[in-house]
Amino acid sequence: MSHSEHPIKRTVGRKATISQDHLIAAALRLVGPHRSISSLSLREITREAGIAPNSFYRHFKSTEELAICVIELAGSTLRKVVGQARYRAQELNKGIVRMSVETFIEQLYADGHYLPILLREGVIGSDRFKHAVRQQLSFFEQELTEDLIAIADRLGRSPAAPALIARAITRLVFAMGADALEMPKDQHPLLIDQMVIMIKMLVTGAHQLQKHPQLAN
Amino acid sequence: MSHSEHPIKRTVGRKATISQDHLIAAALRLVGPHRSISSLSLREITREAGIAPNSFYRHFKSTEELAICVIELAGSTLRKVVGQARYRAQELNKGIVRMSVETFIEQLYADGHYLPILLREGVIGSDRFKHAVRQQLSFFEQELTEDLIAIADRLGRSPAAPALIARAITRLVFAMGADALEMPKDQHPLLIDQMVIMIKMLVTGAHQLQKHPQLAN
Repeated sequence: MSHSEHPIKRTVGRKATISQDHLIAAALRLVGPHRSISSLSLREITREAGIAPNSFYRHFKSTEELAICVIELAGSTLRKVVGQARYRAQELNKGIVRMSVETFIEQLYADGHYLPILLREGVIGSDRFKHAVRQQLSFFEQELTEDLIAIADRLGRSPAAPALIARAITRLVFAMGADALEMPKDQHPLLIDQMVIMIKMLVTGAHQLQKHPQLAN
Repeated sequence: MSHSEHPIKRTVGRKATISQDHLIAAALRLVGPHRSISSLSLREITREAGIAPNSFYRHFKSTEELAICVIELAGSTLRKVVGQARYRAQELNKGIVRMSVETFIEQLYADGHYLPILLREGVIGSDRFKHAVRQQLSFFEQELTEDLIAIADRLGRSPAAPALIARAITRLVFAMGADALEMPKDQHPLLIDQMVIMIKMLVTGAHQLQKHPQLAN
């Protein structure tokens, strides 16, 4: 299923290409930044997508299966956006950590609400939803691990504990992202500064512990 | 209100001393590790505490006010327990980071379910509950900041960014604590090892950034 390239907008006049993508896009519009996916009914989703309720099952086994696809799309989109920011930072010769963190926090307010969906379903969703979110976080961690190794390579250093740093960064940015949702937007620049320094502490600390293993005891 | 010293157990035969403490203890028994505080009814709480429903309002304005007291008790108990672990680690000359993290993770399964309550109400609770949990996390952070300063003092070092480290550690241990709740208990030792190294990375990294500020750019 290739839904990750699909723009999330109203599909007026395109009834002929009704598909899984349209149903996913409809679900994304309905959940918005505050509603849980599990609160969506089949009737509501099909109405929003402009298809007959009984044709839903041609595309998904259940609304739960659709919700899992929404979570997967949220995760893959977030990874793509933040991955591109890391790549762009190199091209622009900007701080890679700062650019990644800024891009991550911007996703709290991006169309499609990918990050709020992950933050919410990871804690209040059903066990299947939580599992799907944890899987997306672990993909996020894996890509970050690979990028940390690639960055160390380019700097001619051996990467220090990249998997552990990636895990700590992932946990930190998602926890601070949840904080950010609850605070006025004008406090975000300070939060971003703090996240950048925390990440630099982790990376710098990992290198020190690699050089001086006795510090780890 | 001094409820923080009260043992959380059945209060059979002590009807004469019915009080806020008994109602809080009853609420704690009822929520257990999985139920949300907001799902408790006044009738259920007073029945568990063994008092008449209409005498509830002599002690609390609403069940919401009782729930806030439960969250405050959960936070103060957790701080006390983890604070004592830091203190005991010094006495026993054991690793202070490891002992704190082990004690924190043990609280996932301690009677009273203080940590699960904070983890749950901080994300699924009403806005007032979330606010109460955030306040408890900020107290946790403050105490940790003071302890980081005291530890640095004892080692004759100037503390590096203690408030920021305390914030990062608080966010990390609560996020990893939520992970721990979802995984089999036999994976906890590995998780504890990871948390200990992450915290040491942060502390070591902060010292490096203090010595070499150019690394922070």
